[in-house]
Amino acid sequence: MPVYTAPTKDLQFLLHDVLEISKQPIEGFDELDRDFTSAILEEAGKLASDVLAPLNVIGDKEGCTLENGVVRTPTGFKQAFDQVRDGGWTAIDCDPAYGGQGLPYVIHTAAQEPMVSANMAFNMYQGLTHGAYSAIWFHGSDEQKQTYLPKLTTCEWTGTMNLTEPHCGTDLGLMRTKAEPQDDGSYRVTGQKIFISAGDHDLAENIIHLVLAKIPGGPEGIKGVSLFIVPKVLVNADGSLGERNALSVGKLEEKMGIHGNATCVMNYDGATGFLVGEAHKGMRAMFTMMNEARLGVGLQGYAQAEAAYRNALAYAKDRLQGRDVTGAKNPNGPADPLIVHPDIRRNLMEQKSFVEGARALTLWGAYLIDRAHKLGDADADGLISLLTPVIKGFQTDVGFDSCIQAQQVFGGHGYIEEWGMSQFARDARIAMIYEGANGIQALDLVGRKLAQDGGKHIMAFFELVKSECQSHAEDARMADFVTPLKTASKQLQQAGMYFMQSGMKNPNNALAGSYDFMHMMGHVCLGLMWTRMAKAAFDALDTGTEDREFYDSKIKTGAFYMARQLPSCASHLARIESGAETVMALDAECF
Amino acid sequence: MPVYTAPTKDLQFLLHDVLEISKQPIEGFDELDRDFTSAILEEAGKLASDVLAPLNVIGDKEGCTLENGVVRTPTGFKQAFDQVRDGGWTAIDCDPAYGGQGLPYVIHTAAQEPMVSANMAFNMYQGLTHGAYSAIWFHGSDEQKQTYLPKLTTCEWTGTMNLTEPHCGTDLGLMRTKAEPQDDGSYRVTGQKIFISAGDHDLAENIIHLVLAKIPGGPEGIKGVSLFIVPKVLVNADGSLGERNALSVGKLEEKMGIHGNATCVMNYDGATGFLVGEAHKGMRAMFTMMNEARLGVGLQGYAQAEAAYRNALAYAKDRLQGRDVTGAKNPNGPADPLIVHPDIRRNLMEQKSFVEGARALTLWGAYLIDRAHKLGDADADGLISLLTPVIKGFQTDVGFDSCIQAQQVFGGHGYIEEWGMSQFARDARIAMIYEGANGIQALDLVGRKLAQDGGKHIMAFFELVKSECQSHAEDARMADFVTPLKTASKQLQQAGMYFMQSGMKNPNNALAGSYDFMHMMGHVCLGLMWTRMAKAAFDALDTGTEDREFYDSKIKTGAFYMARQLPSCASHLARIESGAETVMALDAECF
Repeated sequence: MPVYTAPTKDLQFLLHDVLEISKQPIEGFDELDRDFTSAILEEAGKLASDVLAPLNVIGDKEGCTLENGVVRTPTGFKQAFDQVRDGGWTAIDCDPAYGGQGLPYVIHTAAQEPMVSANMAFNMYQGLTHGAYSAIWFHGSDEQKQTYLPKLTTCEWTGTMNLTEPHCGTDLGLMRTKAEPQDDGSYRVTGQKIFISAGDHDLAENIIHLVLAKIPGGPEGIKGVSLFIVPKVLVNADGSLGERNALSVGKLEEKMGIHGNATCVMNYDGATGFLVGEAHKGMRAMFTMMNEARLGVGLQGYAQAEAAYRNALAYAKDRLQGRDVTGAKNPNGPADPLIVHPDIRRNLMEQKSFVEGARALTLWGAYLIDRAHKLGDADADGLISLLTPVIKGFQTDVGFDSCIQAQQVFGGHGYIEEWGMSQFARDARIAMIYEGANGIQALDLVGRKLAQDGGKHIMAFFELVKSECQSHAEDARMADFVTPLKTASKQLQQAGMYFMQSGMKNPNNALAGSYDFMHMMGHVCLGLMWTRMAKAAFDALDTGTEDREFYDSKIKTGAFYMARQLPSCASHLARIESGAETVMALDAECF
Repeated sequence: MPVYTAPTKDLQFLLHDVLEISKQPIEGFDELDRDFTSAILEEAGKLASDVLAPLNVIGDKEGCTLENGVVRTPTGFKQAFDQVRDGGWTAIDCDPAYGGQGLPYVIHTAAQEPMVSANMAFNMYQGLTHGAYSAIWFHGSDEQKQTYLPKLTTCEWTGTMNLTEPHCGTDLGLMRTKAEPQDDGSYRVTGQKIFISAGDHDLAENIIHLVLAKIPGGPEGIKGVSLFIVPKVLVNADGSLGERNALSVGKLEEKMGIHGNATCVMNYDGATGFLVGEAHKGMRAMFTMMNEARLGVGLQGYAQAEAAYRNALAYAKDRLQGRDVTGAKNPNGPADPLIVHPDIRRNLMEQKSFVEGARALTLWGAYLIDRAHKLGDADADGLISLLTPVIKGFQTDVGFDSCIQAQQVFGGHGYIEEWGMSQFARDARIAMIYEGANGIQALDLVGRKLAQDGGKHIMAFFELVKSECQSHAEDARMADFVTPLKTASKQLQQAGMYFMQSGMKNPNNALAGSYDFMHMMGHVCLGLMWTRMAKAAFDALDTGTEDREFYDSKIKTGAFYMARQLPSCASHLARIESGAETVMALDAECF
């Protein structure tokens, strides 16, 4: 069975050495010193290792069951969910006005990682609830906030998001679910939604479904979509639970992974719903939920890779096969451990350097969200809007590949279910699909985000990379970081330029290169992160830290990423510059 | 449920337009005209579509079961296996002296593809039997051949290969299974073998296990390993079945995929075995089986990708989402089909251009084996020995990625089991692991094959690419193929040069780049294949073929591969030339 230990030290390094959060000019951040965040992360890590990780394989094997319309989660999920709730882990960054702890989003994000690594399917129940909380917090009426937020904060009630229908996922304008206005101001919601994660379960006494639907007579297509709160159990005026609403689970899906999370077909049969925000402006509210969810999915990408990597590493140190060609490392044993072999080490270093880089990018993204929300920093808001599709798309693609690499270290033992490596890959696979398939992330990045506000945010990103490089110009030790970062960043700019110039002639030239651009930008982002981490590590070494090994490892891991992963930007650029011609040359009927 | 139609036309194109098999100077090849091979491939395709494909999902869902020591295969497998056997599909290239049809290996390989695409787990029962047949044909005594080959030819008996033990897979020198000589010339085999595909089942009346074991007192390590025939049921002198041998199934493994194939723990408890070939020379005989198996696994890589691609293509043509940005393609419908979107098309073209390129490489490889065996062509033998790790490693890696891409086209529908796309990915995953994990293929390529016979074969490969390019120097239409192929081939040479020079100083420099080299060489091979296919297609168009669309599609698909996939060679080269330093910089305890 897989093991899990939280990377508390790595998280602390990012929060304090790299982001220096306690020095940031945001109210309350000065209290976030090392001891304070360490206490939180240690506890989160303990919960993840001791309670959630042991349930991961159980969740995979048992899955959820639907009997007589009731969904049951796997053995132990209910008790564990109570422990998560009782420990206040669902409320970290929620508004104190509704029972939250009011801590920064970056702390919430750091505390989430161990829980997602330990048991992704389990953690989705609270993750989706957090999304529903945010949508109502940003767009709900005061009454809705009073009614729902305190219970969502504690996860006494959980939340879901209902977008997809059998015939439409990405293209929500085709939606058929309708919401008919009633005399009392409520709506009757009718339709079928599919792929609803955490759609039903036995972990909470109520489930607050956020449902997209069309009010008859509204605008055609995506402009006629509104957002509704549709509770599983209706809530009385005094806050107590009332009647069961007219909704039911049509089916539980059998999936490749995340078996511990109930993926439901939801049938709404004239269910009572309450409009959130304005009529026909549902997509705006849903995007609040989706953007947060996308950062969370990007976190899933590297968090599963982290869990898989740690197990691959342990196996590579333990399993004896073959000899180091440069001389036996375990001369008294029958063979050397796998980790002596250069190709195994390449594999492990690819995993390690990705996971640590993606962790840095995700926490930086969460910190930008804090700046946007708490300081009203429009630049930070623009930057995270630009980075969100990269964090989601790049990190889930590479995170999945990384799980596959970890599985590969185990040879045949990785393919059988006994060692748990298959589950990491099967679970991680969904992250490339949900909350907008990665092709849609690439389209969002190239088709919308690059040009947003006149291209201001991508220009700011390039400026940021440039000034990072300039600030280390005099530091010879940083050359292994600055030189590849400069090259890759220039290549990324060249790709952006190509889109601008050739996209005018034919928009397909930009769209055909969007996926490569997303990956290229992911590499540049991780290059930037490694440059910052290396600088922080050199600084720590300069000031005479006692933990030289830790900081030295950061520099060496970063140097690997810069030398061996950033060069792929050149290939992405070549592919992009080959344009749409070969991509679109075949007529559809000639395939 | 997934659909499957065999690519008979594509196979015919390769056999006749590209390989021109009926014009080759090998005895009997002149009979292999278009009509003859078409009849075979049509029938194989029909069997695959009508009989094997419908059992694929059933095999995945039911899996195999072990009850009271007896393994049962999924519903329908037995009847289907009888049909395959009765149709003579197991005997195509087998020796007529033992009941085979004596057709070329390339025909066998072409006929295998549809069966592997339609149902990989099912086809492994006959695939492994074919491997056992070959090992005995090459290394067995006359008596052994008489006893076993006729039954293996017809698959009345099936075969297995037993290498792995719980504590050793790649490093077989650590093997513990022992074989003690008996007075009657037989051996008593005792030990445990794991991951034995088709280790037991109800499809055949006997199973011939080929087992590696050590004869006590023999040389240490890999040099003391011998190969034994250990039948499930002992064979009497008159060929009839006698006593059950002392071997049993300890366990059936639960796996990520290929559920329809029984992966067994095999316990040998003093089982009667018969030495194949010389004592302590077991690895040589096993490699006969492995090399053939590796080509077959490379075929699995692209054959699963083919099946997944065909389904993704059908879905992309059918599913309506969004609009073509350059103008609606389905203006009367609610939306355009997915295939209009450039990123979906990029995805499909990547799949298509890989599958068709890998098919060409595999059939060329099979044809080289025919030349080696039937003409005693030592150059062909050296070349296929060089190409085998590339065909296995590159094609299974990219084949798996390709299945993941096909799954991605389906969005959420790809993740649920209902559509069958998850199974293609889960089944294809094993091909990267078994018959030598792909890291071992890379090691074999760089550590052994490059230097084999003084580097003669890799030099011959480069010469072959060069002369291919030169032969099209005057043909302007071929420039889109020749130019990228030349560049990539030079980069590959440069990587080889780097290994020679820097590997002298430190062998880790070569080993750390071995995986990149394998992929780089895969791209050059597929670039070579596309160049040949394009030339064949231009020739067909020049001679006024009626099927212009087919040949035109080949040229366009190839142009995509050359423009968008070959550029990755530059990144692989950059990674290789960064050397082992960053790969090996961290001490094992600092990970």
